[in-house]
Amino acid sequence: MLEMNEPKGYVEVGVARHRNAAQTFATDCVAQEWPVALVFNGISHAVMMATPRDLEALAVGFALTEGLVRNGSEILDLEVLMHKESAEVQLTVIQQSFQALKTRRRSLAGRTGCGVCGIESLGLLDLMPEPVSRSAVVIEPTAGSIRRAAEELPRFQALTRLTGALHAAAWCSPQREVLMAAEDVGRHNALDKLVGQRVLARLPLDDGFVFLSSRASYELVSKAARANIPMVATVSAPSSLAIQIARQAGMTLASFCRSDSFVDYTATTNQS
Amino acid sequence: MLEMNEPKGYVEVGVARHRNAAQTFATDCVAQEWPVALVFNGISHAVMMATPRDLEALAVGFALTEGLVRNGSEILDLEVLMHKESAEVQLTVIQQSFQALKTRRRSLAGRTGCGVCGIESLGLLDLMPEPVSRSAVVIEPTAGSIRRAAEELPRFQALTRLTGALHAAAWCSPQREVLMAAEDVGRHNALDKLVGQRVLARLPLDDGFVFLSSRASYELVSKAARANIPMVATVSAPSSLAIQIARQAGMTLASFCRSDSFVDYTATTNQS
Repeated sequence: MLEMNEPKGYVEVGVARHRNAAQTFATDCVAQEWPVALVFNGISHAVMMATPRDLEALAVGFALTEGLVRNGSEILDLEVLMHKESAEVQLTVIQQSFQALKTRRRSLAGRTGCGVCGIESLGLLDLMPEPVSRSAVVIEPTAGSIRRAAEELPRFQALTRLTGALHAAAWCSPQREVLMAAEDVGRHNALDKLVGQRVLARLPLDDGFVFLSSRASYELVSKAARANIPMVATVSAPSSLAIQIARQAGMTLASFCRSDSFVDYTATTNQS
Repeated sequence: MLEMNEPKGYVEVGVARHRNAAQTFATDCVAQEWPVALVFNGISHAVMMATPRDLEALAVGFALTEGLVRNGSEILDLEVLMHKESAEVQLTVIQQSFQALKTRRRSLAGRTGCGVCGIESLGLLDLMPEPVSRSAVVIEPTAGSIRRAAEELPRFQALTRLTGALHAAAWCSPQREVLMAAEDVGRHNALDKLVGQRVLARLPLDDGFVFLSSRASYELVSKAARANIPMVATVSAPSSLAIQIARQAGMTLASFCRSDSFVDYTATTNQS
């Protein structure tokens, strides 16, 4: 449809690469993460965070795998609309599928688990976090703190050792070590469990950083911002929207954290 | 609260381990994935798939990171109820937070992106898939087909090579090779894009298998079952509920797929 306007699927951002004690500024390719709304017969049905390529296929596949249509021929028309940093797919389905969808919607008036995908339309999405309050202790990633976090995290991953299947979220002291951690099949749940553990123990959320065994995506950085956590470090890559949210909130985001290296995705913003 | 009844976070399942051409039956530890409902002041707010440990912390963290409360003191009471294979956390929050929650719910009457987390209460969750229709071609994992899938997938991961951040879903022929693939920051979106590509090209969904660069979780196997895909293979581990859904649907689920080995989580069921 709008193939010529299709985004590339990645964006280039300025980063600070750290290896051992050395720091170099560089440009990094980051996966695009956009809110994509699926609209059935004029009614907005779901908003998902997705990479804005092959959105026609995404919409057709979603309709089928969520049981909204039984086969491709029940989709009469399909149009992809690219906005500035979001997209919309408008589908027209046969009347029978649309009636079933409306019936199902009435029984599913729900809310979301991870903070995004229960949202009905793009306008309801909160992409402007409040700035994180700066605590007395400034939390910056250092080669030492990232190394300790990367090396100590496996000790806290008892269920992952058994099953190979869970994510972990750990609370780290910038000066010392990993203090506590939580595991879950969902990375956003692991973060929530960690935050909950600290709240239940009446411990602060601004005197250290969160280290996640996963990638950094929109919902993880948004959750951390809402809890006023000043820094998030992750083992794997960040998404474009995770970086944007972290920068807007004035947080520090370090990814690809290894025992001898990491990439700081907010160094350039925080400097300016 | 009910610490004594707390599940272990993993279950043991019978599997068939394949290494090169050899097969051995064994018992595997698998991460527990349960639907967990969060109920605020008597009203069911969200259902998430989670590992059923530290659910008190999960609920407190979720309330804070989703902005439902501003701090722990706004949560007046908390109770965890363990059911047979699901759990419920009942929170009592101060009246002001509950009013804000009700207002927010009215504007967010939405649906879900991944098939789970927009669901409001446990009763609405569909954990009983229709059996997958058996096609003329029986799809079983073989050392050869898994090896080809594992070796060829990286060729289709152009955006992952650039960014390190995306998941891929590939369509594989049991006899030949990887035929097509899709990438996305969300693993469920990658699967939907792949399914959509095949539907748009009027290609069948029962003459091969899906190979995913991710873990196997509830929503991925459910989506595949609804699309009538006979087999799912994944690079990483499966969850307990993914195995349960695959077995109920009569699908084949192979995980930890490497060029020289894989684990078949449905071999014992399909044999009996």
